[in-house]
Amino acid sequence: MKKQQEKTRAVKEIARRAREKIPSLWVWDDLESRLNFATDRSAALAVPDLVVLPSREEELLRFMELIQTFPVPLTPQGARTGMSGGAVPVRGGIAISMLRMRKILSVQRHNRLVIVHPGVITGHLHRSLEKKGFFYPPDPASLAICTLGGNIAEDAGGPRAVKYGVTHDYVLGLRVLLSDGRRLSLGGETLKDVAGYRLASLFTGSEGTLGIITRATLRILPLPQTRLLLLCLFPSMASALTSVQEILFRETPSAIEFMDRQATRLVRGHLPLANTDNAESLLLIEIDGIEAMVNHTLDIVSRICHKNAAISLLPAKGPREADKLWDIRRNLSPALYRIAPTKLNHDIVVPLGNILSLVERLEEISKDYNTTIASFGHVGDGNLHVNLMTNRNNPASYENALKGVDVLFNDVLSLHGSISGEHGIGLAKRAWLPRQLSKTTLSAMRQVKDCFDPIGIMNPGKIFLQGGNYGKKTSQKNT
Amino acid sequence: MKKQQEKTRAVKEIARRAREKIPSLWVWDDLESRLNFATDRSAALAVPDLVVLPSREEELLRFMELIQTFPVPLTPQGARTGMSGGAVPVRGGIAISMLRMRKILSVQRHNRLVIVHPGVITGHLHRSLEKKGFFYPPDPASLAICTLGGNIAEDAGGPRAVKYGVTHDYVLGLRVLLSDGRRLSLGGETLKDVAGYRLASLFTGSEGTLGIITRATLRILPLPQTRLLLLCLFPSMASALTSVQEILFRETPSAIEFMDRQATRLVRGHLPLANTDNAESLLLIEIDGIEAMVNHTLDIVSRICHKNAAISLLPAKGPREADKLWDIRRNLSPALYRIAPTKLNHDIVVPLGNILSLVERLEEISKDYNTTIASFGHVGDGNLHVNLMTNRNNPASYENALKGVDVLFNDVLSLHGSISGEHGIGLAKRAWLPRQLSKTTLSAMRQVKDCFDPIGIMNPGKIFLQGGNYGKKTSQKNT
Repeated sequence: MKKQQEKTRAVKEIARRAREKIPSLWVWDDLESRLNFATDRSAALAVPDLVVLPSREEELLRFMELIQTFPVPLTPQGARTGMSGGAVPVRGGIAISMLRMRKILSVQRHNRLVIVHPGVITGHLHRSLEKKGFFYPPDPASLAICTLGGNIAEDAGGPRAVKYGVTHDYVLGLRVLLSDGRRLSLGGETLKDVAGYRLASLFTGSEGTLGIITRATLRILPLPQTRLLLLCLFPSMASALTSVQEILFRETPSAIEFMDRQATRLVRGHLPLANTDNAESLLLIEIDGIEAMVNHTLDIVSRICHKNAAISLLPAKGPREADKLWDIRRNLSPALYRIAPTKLNHDIVVPLGNILSLVERLEEISKDYNTTIASFGHVGDGNLHVNLMTNRNNPASYENALKGVDVLFNDVLSLHGSISGEHGIGLAKRAWLPRQLSKTTLSAMRQVKDCFDPIGIMNPGKIFLQGGNYGKKTSQKNT
Repeated sequence: MKKQQEKTRAVKEIARRAREKIPSLWVWDDLESRLNFATDRSAALAVPDLVVLPSREEELLRFMELIQTFPVPLTPQGARTGMSGGAVPVRGGIAISMLRMRKILSVQRHNRLVIVHPGVITGHLHRSLEKKGFFYPPDPASLAICTLGGNIAEDAGGPRAVKYGVTHDYVLGLRVLLSDGRRLSLGGETLKDVAGYRLASLFTGSEGTLGIITRATLRILPLPQTRLLLLCLFPSMASALTSVQEILFRETPSAIEFMDRQATRLVRGHLPLANTDNAESLLLIEIDGIEAMVNHTLDIVSRICHKNAAISLLPAKGPREADKLWDIRRNLSPALYRIAPTKLNHDIVVPLGNILSLVERLEEISKDYNTTIASFGHVGDGNLHVNLMTNRNNPASYENALKGVDVLFNDVLSLHGSISGEHGIGLAKRAWLPRQLSKTTLSAMRQVKDCFDPIGIMNPGKIFLQGGNYGKKTSQKNT
């Protein structure tokens, strides 16, 4: 209680000084503003004591210097579209929103790179590059509103990861500010670089627990000549997943999205196809490259799907029809609420060859815990979004679903998988991380955090169950 | 001196106990054996006090436990083909050679991965996968003898990095032993994984300074249907490099190798072409994929080269002719000694668009310091091997060349480059790393090292100029 009062006083003092000394920094402490920065897309909610929005790195640097005398928790935020609670200021303190730092600083096609502020909207970068014949491959579902800084912090993926990889495959360099006011330049502007440890890679996916990204250098690629989207309906999940295995044994489409029985039932009325009643599973396969290449892969994919008893295959006629098919996929997540009002969504991942076993285990979990499970997602990477549909207001149903999640994670780990393929650990999966990583590994990770955040105020309460240094030590400058 | 005696005694005691307690571990302390583990392909030489060769992780783990009472420097070694002194036991102590741990433990094509011991020869993995229709893209020049563990420790590249990236793009998981006896499992067997910090990525390229790799899980890909190698001769370096820029603006060949004027003059008598007298530069361009794709790219590449006044273009007829062309490239490095007896070889890298400026600067350095410079290499990544040819026994010439190297690094950094694109810092570039990285960044890297190697005995003297913890602290188990 006393600690809470101290923190409140510290935050008030920080706000006062910040307004006085950094007039261009936006500093908000009214409840309405603070409520606006209290959530992401997980179920978590925590209201920050203060919100600041820098427009330049210099402002943020000065702010970081200022808080050294009053260390309080800092939670960096992008567009807060994360699914694991990473951007929720669970210990209160200060939310640092990077939304005002949203300039594409430089597009260097001849160097195959761009330099961006962390607040640039991912979809905005996509559009601006595509006009120029280039593209930035990572394409998380929230790309219309999420930010590149958030993508880097969470190491965001997306459908195209099958061929192009995820965010960390595109981060060449980062500028970061640390909680004790240090500024680091990590990596650079070259496609190869082995000068010292790969710290830019370490920061990618660190969920805002190591420092605040103020600038990123990202690799880009020439836009492929053509993209073709193929919709494939199957009479069973096994026939769809066997097709995926056989395709990946030879070819690498840019995306392979899967829908299980429940998901397929939800969407089959919306498909531009007749005779969908028997469809129990669905694949969306995107192929890109030059036309001859696309046709070649399409031919192989079609033959494999037919061999595995596909009900029908529909190549989208042009980009507009493809967009409509992608919309069906994108709208699936909200459509799940037709099954039940509460969704427990987990983005697990297993080795490619274990997907079918995983889906079979999901059926058993569904039966054992009397919970409808709809799963879909990036099956070409072994990465599924598993949704246990339940009702938070029905304790028996909810308890069952929670037990199902627990069994799910055990199954994933026994299939050599990971409890998170895309969304990160954040708050949502902290409790399970010790099941995947040994005590020794977790404690090494904590030590790494302490190197960059010695006072323990960077996004405390995330990834690790224990709270870290915050409150134990204070800043050296404070003594 | 006293410290040296202590170390000698410690090593003797370690050897005695190791032989007694771990009989299957090979423990060599005769001078001839130790001399065999004293070098890599840099100019450095340092004889270890002891060499051990484990055949299994368990042996090494027991050995690491045993040395806790007598902490001495440990230098992990692969095939010692590195160019920066990374495997040279510069502080004496124990060389740990991983050559006996050379099993491909598992080839899982359906999971697109392999699990290997660190001592597996890279070329051996290549051949064994190619028979099965798959491949492991990283292809360092020494692939016939280098090991995967060494490749991971140095984050090795190779010609195919243009399209396929370098070693770190293929490391999914690592098992490592730390100097204090901890065993960590980092990453895993999935293509995506965001559970905790990316420590497997941090260990990749850490040059054996953080721990010893005992097992690696590596991503593999289906083998492309065709590969075509194109030899292109140009009348000037500018016309070759302009072609590279224009090609990369649209297409991504699997490899683009460049030779400058000096290098081209050395090889042009060996080319399967007439009229090579006017050739002042050369490109080797490899294109892979399905045949239609290869032809498409070949067509674009040929048009661009002709537009830029190429003297002649020769597509290799079949893999045997391609091998001959690659041999010319591979034999270039030894052929340089026809120019002068001492080679100062630096693998610098700049952003793609700055290669031409760099090559122009090299011409100036050559003139200013009266030193012949031959450069060649992976220009499709902006990565050149710059060789300053001199004579170590001629002090004036050698001094000049050393000054030239110093100016070269400044030029590279002013062109937004890195002092090492492939070979690592090791011993060879420690002195220059502080020019590229800020004090703050370097000190953060040191702190990271201290997390994993608290007693400071893992490959001391590499990357960082200062010696680290060794001798300052001792193992906690030692008290």
